[in-house]
Amino acid sequence: MERIKPRTLSGFMELLPPAQAKMEVFMETLRKNYSLYGFTPLDTPVIEAADVLLAKGGGETEKQIYRFTKGDSDLALRFDLTVPLAKYVALNYGALAFPFRRYQIGKVYRGERAQRGRFREFYQADIDIIGDGKLDIVNEAEIPSIIYRTFTTLGLEKFVIRVNNRKILTGFYAMQGLGDRAGDIMRTVDKLDKIGPEKVRELLTSEEIGVPAAAADEILRFIAIRGSNAEVLSALEGYRGRNGIFDCGLDELRAVTAYLPEFGVPEQNFAVDLTIARGLDYYTGTVYETTLTEHPEIGSVCSGGRYDNLAEYYTDKPLPGVGISIGLTRLFYVLQEQGMLSDALITAPADVLVIPMTEELSFAVQTATTLRNAGLRTQLYTEPKKFKAKMSYADKLGFPFVILIGEDEIAQGKVSVKDMASGAQTLQAPGEAAGQVKAALTERSGVKVIKE
Amino acid sequence: MERIKPRTLSGFMELLPPAQAKMEVFMETLRKNYSLYGFTPLDTPVIEAADVLLAKGGGETEKQIYRFTKGDSDLALRFDLTVPLAKYVALNYGALAFPFRRYQIGKVYRGERAQRGRFREFYQADIDIIGDGKLDIVNEAEIPSIIYRTFTTLGLEKFVIRVNNRKILTGFYAMQGLGDRAGDIMRTVDKLDKIGPEKVRELLTSEEIGVPAAAADEILRFIAIRGSNAEVLSALEGYRGRNGIFDCGLDELRAVTAYLPEFGVPEQNFAVDLTIARGLDYYTGTVYETTLTEHPEIGSVCSGGRYDNLAEYYTDKPLPGVGISIGLTRLFYVLQEQGMLSDALITAPADVLVIPMTEELSFAVQTATTLRNAGLRTQLYTEPKKFKAKMSYADKLGFPFVILIGEDEIAQGKVSVKDMASGAQTLQAPGEAAGQVKAALTERSGVKVIKE
Repeated sequence: MERIKPRTLSGFMELLPPAQAKMEVFMETLRKNYSLYGFTPLDTPVIEAADVLLAKGGGETEKQIYRFTKGDSDLALRFDLTVPLAKYVALNYGALAFPFRRYQIGKVYRGERAQRGRFREFYQADIDIIGDGKLDIVNEAEIPSIIYRTFTTLGLEKFVIRVNNRKILTGFYAMQGLGDRAGDIMRTVDKLDKIGPEKVRELLTSEEIGVPAAAADEILRFIAIRGSNAEVLSALEGYRGRNGIFDCGLDELRAVTAYLPEFGVPEQNFAVDLTIARGLDYYTGTVYETTLTEHPEIGSVCSGGRYDNLAEYYTDKPLPGVGISIGLTRLFYVLQEQGMLSDALITAPADVLVIPMTEELSFAVQTATTLRNAGLRTQLYTEPKKFKAKMSYADKLGFPFVILIGEDEIAQGKVSVKDMASGAQTLQAPGEAAGQVKAALTERSGVKVIKE
Repeated sequence: MERIKPRTLSGFMELLPPAQAKMEVFMETLRKNYSLYGFTPLDTPVIEAADVLLAKGGGETEKQIYRFTKGDSDLALRFDLTVPLAKYVALNYGALAFPFRRYQIGKVYRGERAQRGRFREFYQADIDIIGDGKLDIVNEAEIPSIIYRTFTTLGLEKFVIRVNNRKILTGFYAMQGLGDRAGDIMRTVDKLDKIGPEKVRELLTSEEIGVPAAAADEILRFIAIRGSNAEVLSALEGYRGRNGIFDCGLDELRAVTAYLPEFGVPEQNFAVDLTIARGLDYYTGTVYETTLTEHPEIGSVCSGGRYDNLAEYYTDKPLPGVGISIGLTRLFYVLQEQGMLSDALITAPADVLVIPMTEELSFAVQTATTLRNAGLRTQLYTEPKKFKAKMSYADKLGFPFVILIGEDEIAQGKVSVKDMASGAQTLQAPGEAAGQVKAALTERSGVKVIKE
């Protein structure tokens, strides 16, 4: 038979079982935490009509999108979860209650140039709160608290959620008489971390953007405002009264930073940062980026913000919202590369491997059933191999417990329970064994998927 | 602005939040139960190289597949989860330990003609056990026990897992001197339920298949064998000794039916059924179909079997296996249509809606944080609406509990907890409220997603 070489496409993550087990903990942690805040899970198709997905249109998206025809249909794969959300809300407007809070964890597709750490198929994990006409500012303070709880549950502690408000920036640039160039300026300032202040100044004063030298200096002074949140807010008060949009943004930023501690976010995990703009025209109020304190080179691992109009390409209903997105596949990849995924996490396919050592399997099957009824993940190993091969299978897959059943055990109606970590072996009735293993696993269950 | 009509493609399931909440319970139940048997979760790309997916080739698949080019690459969307598993095992053979047990719940794509209840994008939920060269028969008995536990956890009781063995059929046809036509015959017999015995006889004796009349009668007598499992096995013993393959199949079927009760499957939930063949050349031993007793018209909702060679198109390693698949999207759709999804299940986005009735929100935010820390799914409603609008939001989304916080409550440091089912309202400290709500929810948590 002619054989095809098995292969997985470049830019598509496909994990071996131990890594996949960690990814599952990741996704389950996200689902649990998002649910704690009243977000309902959503699942939209991977394929949509191309004109629906490309309603907004625009450069990079059109180039990267996977688009094809099937029969007469012009189809495309979703490239984010925001456009499908906009479609969903516009389509089901009458059936939904607002504010509408949804989370979605799903694969999206972008035909980027293949390179290490860049993915063409990747998971995004999004939460959004959509209002009908209006949406209260408290929601903008709640979003970072969700990220805080999610990240700490995963095992991260050393991270900062950076918060800014686009109205402050828009208002500030208007004060400088640069309102018409605010978009270009913000996109340039957004590069500050990567290229440094000198280069930013150079770009701002270039012919293309054309900011006068004095205004460029003013901009650099402004974005250099640093300090505790109270200090930054206090420095911003110095600009109050010169522009209505600026003042409104400052009020919002004050409200967000005031609510954050009440939502349980410690001061060290969030920071007002005037350099955050998010290089998209989409955001209109609060914006977020999240960086790992000891790995600034990774960039933001969780970003988002407030927008005024989710679905303007589909409906005339004003639908303001606030949302944040985790690029899950990339984050997982980076954590793996940095050695930040815990090896202490149990990644075996089951908690217990039951190994019968006789041909007669009844007692072993019954024991496995007893363990499963007790909620223990249990695999029965029935291949007729030598004892050594069976134990080497248990070792290779990392089962925390092995239960051995030979003629002696069957005669006594008991099983030998081997704790693979300590090597200790005890003889017990199957029901007792289940209790012992469960207790031991509960003790060991505090391990988090990320270690710092 | 010119607007695009928001729409979802025909043949693509997109659920409203209450139905999606039920689908999530479905998927979580599958994940939990598959994990109880030592299956490791796998996640392979939706897109693969077209030549990899089409290694086997063949009629319907080639017609239905979503295939397209991106740059120079000839790509396709997976149409099942078996071919990607075969690729994965062949590709990672050296890194895996065998038997390799994996489950995968993922979307697959088939460009079928659009019609009601037919989906082009749908979830399959697969479990497979792959051996390296050999795989013990006990695995073939364990598979139905997994389905039994999964279905009963979902709330189904009235179903029968029908079991047969392809070797019995192959051996029987060989006895009739029809070994060379066994495939055609089995495909025809497989239609018995749909077209009846007369029509089957007609097709068998047609020129195309060419079974002699006497042999056709013998075949119809054989597949008409009915009764308890013991009776059917006993009738099959009457054929023993005439064909080695038949005898081997009968031994396997006896082994499977003997182990099933030890795996905890009651006699009424499985049946030896000689009409089950699975219309695929792929299966070589035990085969399964699962039917809902009171809805035979739905057909099999969970099918699979034993195969000798998972990945022959990719590797010369013999990789026998056994697996079963649930067509999740179709099953969910059918249950919904039949009114078999429980309305008693809580589908609200959270357990508690916290409604502040003052402008000052600190106590409400702190209360929400307390509830979340206690593990309660909690939504904070902060939109400045009238009380009636807030309560109507709570009603519409079906929150089981609402917590009201007005000036009186704040003054006392307590909250008003309203049980939306009974209407009862009590005043308590936030911590106490959390305890009460948790206790009440635990009491109500026995509801299963399917009702019969």
